[in-house]
Amino acid sequence: ARELWVQRWGTDAHATSMATATSVMRVQQLLLARFDAIAGRHGLTFARYEALVLLAFSRDQRLSMSRIGERLMVHPTSATNIVQRLVAQGFVERVPNPTDRRGAFAVITAAGVAAMEAVTVDLEEADFGLGMLDADQHDTLFAVLREVRVGARDFTP
Amino acid sequence: ARELWVQRWGTDAHATSMATATSVMRVQQLLLARFDAIAGRHGLTFARYEALVLLAFSRDQRLSMSRIGERLMVHPTSATNIVQRLVAQGFVERVPNPTDRRGAFAVITAAGVAAMEAVTVDLEEADFGLGMLDADQHDTLFAVLREVRVGARDFTP
Repeated sequence: ARELWVQRWGTDAHATSMATATSVMRVQQLLLARFDAIAGRHGLTFARYEALVLLAFSRDQRLSMSRIGERLMVHPTSATNIVQRLVAQGFVERVPNPTDRRGAFAVITAAGVAAMEAVTVDLEEADFGLGMLDADQHDTLFAVLREVRVGARDFTP
Repeated sequence: ARELWVQRWGTDAHATSMATATSVMRVQQLLLARFDAIAGRHGLTFARYEALVLLAFSRDQRLSMSRIGERLMVHPTSATNIVQRLVAQGFVERVPNPTDRRGAFAVITAAGVAAMEAVTVDLEEADFGLGMLDADQHDTLFAVLREVRVGARDFTP
């Protein structure tokens, strides 16, 4: 889309922002495709892997369903879907939430921890798809993206 | 996830790549949420808007379904879904493909062009969610992301 855009509105003041935004989205797409392929070797998707990471590092290795959606920043329906798939695979167990009869906790199982660790090893080996960048480029990229996050009020520095 | 990761593997050589990759994904998420909200004012999602842009700038303002999936880099099922929604909204028409009886062309309508242009005006006004970056930061971000794309063989420079 960027090429089309620049072609059409090349002299426009907004063409730069459009090009940068499209670039961010394209790189995210490339990384996600790579990460999904890596997670796929272990029967996972990157989204399900992220949920396992989240659970593994939570206190007591458990979280309520609503908290999982919040932390993964996905729609509650997607969070439910992800956990259902993980339960079917034996990587997560649902247990009742004693303080909320309608809610439930998701708990990572030993098999879930093993699967998560296997994907992590492979992602590290692939250098998270970013092996083409040197240390300076990593720092630069991280710093500029941080500006965007601060500007979008993703967090307060 | 980044914070958890750095906490756990802070001294690991791969922590930098993980942090940068997570940052790309988070910024994409923020931009997409913003763009979806803007497209939503005109009854669209950003994905459907992208399909309209693609059609509007195609020769004869039409494309085969398979080509739409390819160009948007989404699964054929998603492309079909997107076009079906656009057809239901009167922004796109399906016409038979004379050279492929099983295939079909999607053609953008006048209403589709108008909706696309309305979203474009609003996206430009929002500076594509990147108004917090100055010209140098745009150039830097674009250049580093280009390295990633070249490294991932997204295109040959």
